[in-house]
Amino acid sequence: MSKTVAFIGLGNMGGGMAANIAKAGFVVHAFDLVQANLDAAQAAGCKPFTCAKEAVDGADFVLTMLPNGAIVEQVYLGENNDGLLSHVAPHALIIDCSTVAPANSRHVGKAAQDAGIAFVDAPVSGGVAAANAGTLAFMVGGSERNFEAAKEVLSAMGPNTFRAGDIGAGSVAKICNNMLLAVHMAGTAEALQLGMDNGLDPKALSEIMLKSSGCNWSLEKYNPVPGVMDGVPSSNDYQGGFMVDLMLKDLGLAMEASTGSKSSVPMGSAARSLFNLHKNSGGEDKGALDFSSIQQLYKN
Amino acid sequence: MSKTVAFIGLGNMGGGMAANIAKAGFVVHAFDLVQANLDAAQAAGCKPFTCAKEAVDGADFVLTMLPNGAIVEQVYLGENNDGLLSHVAPHALIIDCSTVAPANSRHVGKAAQDAGIAFVDAPVSGGVAAANAGTLAFMVGGSERNFEAAKEVLSAMGPNTFRAGDIGAGSVAKICNNMLLAVHMAGTAEALQLGMDNGLDPKALSEIMLKSSGCNWSLEKYNPVPGVMDGVPSSNDYQGGFMVDLMLKDLGLAMEASTGSKSSVPMGSAARSLFNLHKNSGGEDKGALDFSSIQQLYKN
Amino acid sequence: MSKTVAFIGLGNMGGGMAANIAKAGFVVHAFDLVQANLDAAQAAGCKPFTCAKEAVDGADFVLTMLPNGAIVEQVYLGENNDGLLSHVAPHALIIDCSTVAPANSRHVGKAAQDAGIAFVDAPVSGGVAAANAGTLAFMVGGSERNFEAAKEVLSAMGPNTFRAGDIGAGSVAKICNNMLLAVHMAGTAEALQLGMDNGLDPKALSEIMLKSSGCNWSLEKYNPVPGVMDGVPSSNDYQGGFMVDLMLKDLGLAMEASTGSKSSVPMGSAARSLFNLHKNSGGEDKGALDFSSIQQLYKN
Amino acid sequence: MSKTVAFIGLGNMGGGMAANIAKAGFVVHAFDLVQANLDAAQAAGCKPFTCAKEAVDGADFVLTMLPNGAIVEQVYLGENNDGLLSHVAPHALIIDCSTVAPANSRHVGKAAQDAGIAFVDAPVSGGVAAANAGTLAFMVGGSERNFEAAKEVLSAMGPNTFRAGDIGAGSVAKICNNMLLAVHMAGTAEALQLGMDNGLDPKALSEIMLKSSGCNWSLEKYNPVPGVMDGVPSSNDYQGGFMVDLMLKDLGLAMEASTGSKSSVPMGSAARSLFNLHKNSGGEDKGALDFSSIQQLYKN
Repeated sequence: MSKTVAFIGLGNMGGGMAANIAKAGFVVHAFDLVQANLDAAQAAGCKPFTCAKEAVDGADFVLTMLPNGAIVEQVYLGENNDGLLSHVAPHALIIDCSTVAPANSRHVGKAAQDAGIAFVDAPVSGGVAAANAGTLAFMVGGSERNFEAAKEVLSAMGPNTFRAGDIGAGSVAKICNNMLLAVHMAGTAEALQLGMDNGLDPKALSEIMLKSSGCNWSLEKYNPVPGVMDGVPSSNDYQGGFMVDLMLKDLGLAMEASTGSKSSVPMGSAARSLFNLHKNSGGEDKGALDFSSIQQLYKN
Repeated sequence: MSKTVAFIGLGNMGGGMAANIAKAGFVVHAFDLVQANLDAAQAAGCKPFTCAKEAVDGADFVLTMLPNGAIVEQVYLGENNDGLLSHVAPHALIIDCSTVAPANSRHVGKAAQDAGIAFVDAPVSGGVAAANAGTLAFMVGGSERNFEAAKEVLSAMGPNTFRAGDIGAGSVAKICNNMLLAVHMAGTAEALQLGMDNGLDPKALSEIMLKSSGCNWSLEKYNPVPGVMDGVPSSNDYQGGFMVDLMLKDLGLAMEASTGSKSSVPMGSAARSLFNLHKNSGGEDKGALDFSSIQQLYKN
Repeated sequence: MSKTVAFIGLGNMGGGMAANIAKAGFVVHAFDLVQANLDAAQAAGCKPFTCAKEAVDGADFVLTMLPNGAIVEQVYLGENNDGLLSHVAPHALIIDCSTVAPANSRHVGKAAQDAGIAFVDAPVSGGVAAANAGTLAFMVGGSERNFEAAKEVLSAMGPNTFRAGDIGAGSVAKICNNMLLAVHMAGTAEALQLGMDNGLDPKALSEIMLKSSGCNWSLEKYNPVPGVMDGVPSSNDYQGGFMVDLMLKDLGLAMEASTGSKSSVPMGSAARSLFNLHKNSGGEDKGALDFSSIQQLYKN
Repeated sequence: MSKTVAFIGLGNMGGGMAANIAKAGFVVHAFDLVQANLDAAQAAGCKPFTCAKEAVDGADFVLTMLPNGAIVEQVYLGENNDGLLSHVAPHALIIDCSTVAPANSRHVGKAAQDAGIAFVDAPVSGGVAAANAGTLAFMVGGSERNFEAAKEVLSAMGPNTFRAGDIGAGSVAKICNNMLLAVHMAGTAEALQLGMDNGLDPKALSEIMLKSSGCNWSLEKYNPVPGVMDGVPSSNDYQGGFMVDLMLKDLGLAMEASTGSKSSVPMGSAARSLFNLHKNSGGEDKGALDFSSIQQLYKN
């Protein structure tokens, strides 16, 4: 008999993820506050629920994809311990795919453990296109055993799952990765602009740096200068992709984590400042542009 | 009959480069102020000269590998136009492989053009090991024609030569690449330390980021955390490799270029500050360590 | 008849503050978890309490001086609404002098308002010496009326009280001020070191900048170079004064506030990174040194 | 009999300076390439010269106020030692008031010494208004004796002259001071914006910080938020005052000096990046605005 997955949060990312789980043969109990999202989930083969508690009832897996850590805590813990944790089946495995602070993951994970329920944090790498295509990667925090169990569902949404460590480690890995992404994207934009300002063609400079020690993912997959690379946001007016606002959210989590662990993050802080200055530059909110639009901030 | 290459500057890099040119069948007129370097060049098949003007006399190519732009200008231009430019054969091609400011390349290149002599700037990517092994890459600034001509010699020292643009463009490309390298090395060290400070194993985190959007050359070829990767400076007490002092020299050139072109380089500036703080931290000069030792600065 | 002040938190700062309130003629109900602090308070004329709820019972003012916002929330709100708020007299005015996030002030202030109790946040400017001497300044958030009422007690601890705005505004002002302090202290150390590295005497350079546009509080009251100014921490091995760890706490609050308000704080972020790098530099924790010891980080 | 001052460079600053020297009773030989500047100088009581060499002939003091170090070197040294140095009277004192790199001052100063001619570098603090009003301050590098001699002329242009050290020290002091000014101006703008973004009135916050440890010259004399302070550029659409482009020039000199002395200047570098980003933000060159317009960059 098919296993049941309760999926909470059918937004931009969650919609495609739930659909892929259903496609893989799971019974998906889909919950969201927005009716249109429920309708889309139903059309994709999920069973819609208008009550989250009913959605998780008896489910083998509970998967959440929510906007932030406060909401994740609210959903699982509730105000007076009346959150989903007290409605989840004892044998269920909770998989939180939301991007949250490690402290949120650890807080909810601890409460789950106290209630005898298995938990992993499993934030994703990849955007809406990858969510729809089933090509997400997952950075997982939890025990080896729960990690292996989670793979059964996660593999329906993408081929790559990595165990980063114990509960919270998935969130830490996501934050570290995205901070590093912000750093090399800003650095790549800056190096390309410095080259252009000194007379170089950005395509020629990109090709040289791709084969040299400056090489990085931003340069290879996501060149921020319009016209250098086809099929990337920079060649589509910075539409689509990974929004500046989402990068700022992740950089905010990195700042928070660094304060907690008393770590120095000068490059990540500088990147956060630049993306924030960019968002607010020129008198309009640029938060909805793809994050490679940071190139515009450097323009002379 | 074999063509003649005058090679000026037989230091750590130049020694291996001259040897590889000789090995490729060129007659190499080797010049250096240090006798031991001349002896080594002779042992490698070069013909030693104790006078630079005699070394360049009649040579088909003049190749310089010198410590900085002031010395390059001095060697070619001299005090009263008595530099090598007035002793080079009219048909010769000058190839300056030194890492210098674009302004130096353009200054010497202009003087060469005025004298009717062909010139390219061709700074290298790769360190002493690559110089010895003949696996350097070259970023070349000059006309298409001179670029093609230079390849005859450059290919003896490494398989990859890139034309970045006109005279000075090689120096610009080198500076942009190394600034970006400094940025992602510092960012990688910072992300790994943030992960470790939050309980992650650096090896696990490195593997995850290598397959995610944080991927970059520093993470892939040159992990800065001791013990994560074999055969890199971080696993050898940060000995060998590319010295902090050399990275600081290149970052200084990037600052200079950015001031000239009125470009904003916030990430490169932050990286320069970090490498400089690192050099001076803990009461001893760390300038001779490999640049991945920046990891030490972040250590909690 | 004398009014009663319940004073919660008799640490380094709170001890002197409670003593000055007692000296001004108030009946002070002093509470702390540490017996030695209670003994000292008693010696200074306060009435010691080993139960906070008893201490606030019937008090006209409740004043808290606690280590951080989580503790402040815990003390006033408790786990299940059993915090001090439910034990404070209806006519009492709560004055929280702790340095906390504006969000903490607003959270507790809102709960107080809901309970019909007056509240102001009133973080202090000045250190232990000022607390003992009764020369603190207070940045107050709350209504005009509550601000005026609070002055009755605050004036016992220092001559300067400023109303920054409504509840939470005191905490915002404190954070902004201390972020700016961190920025100009780091900038002053940096400018002095740049001067020294270029051959200038720090005393001569300080005197010039004091009379020029570089002038700032750090230069005027708190020169960070040993030997330039008498009676400041830099001339006493950076002992005493305002600890690096406390500055880092305030800068952490600034980062948190900036994330919440989506503000760009590039200079504050850079300062936070520098103080954090300084704390961890050289293999020992420098968090207990005075914050002007940032000068050491710059030393060549 | 009156002493003679040759004044080279009658631009925005130089015009007023030469006029004040004439007003003090010196015979002023004024030279500039622009006829309109010569006419204005003549109207102010100077004797106009269309040949610099004739202007300096026999002069007791030679004062230069030129755009940058390259021009200063060109004017004094010339191409083939045919600069003004070979035309200046042996007893003359050269006073260079231009803002240049310390290396320029030292280079020209050394050449002057070799020629047996006294030299001081004496860059100014204060803008066009101060130049006209005779209220400039001078930071002087040179021997005690030459400093005392220079005061005879300098005191005609402003009441404050400081000796910073030997030749070049005036330029170092100017650079350090202006770097620190840039740091606290950017920090002040940032702190005020953080406060405003968190609901504070900038006037109230400014008043609090003025009386607290955040106090600095930018806050006291030059508040960057429009409407807080009367008679400053921020309340006049950032017109007048000290231009962004001039601040960028000085920050470029600071970067250059720091590279030369291998000093870490993280705060100064961050400030330079911010002023450069500001200059280029929003699609128009903001270099001609007053530097306190950096406030606009922070605006949310």
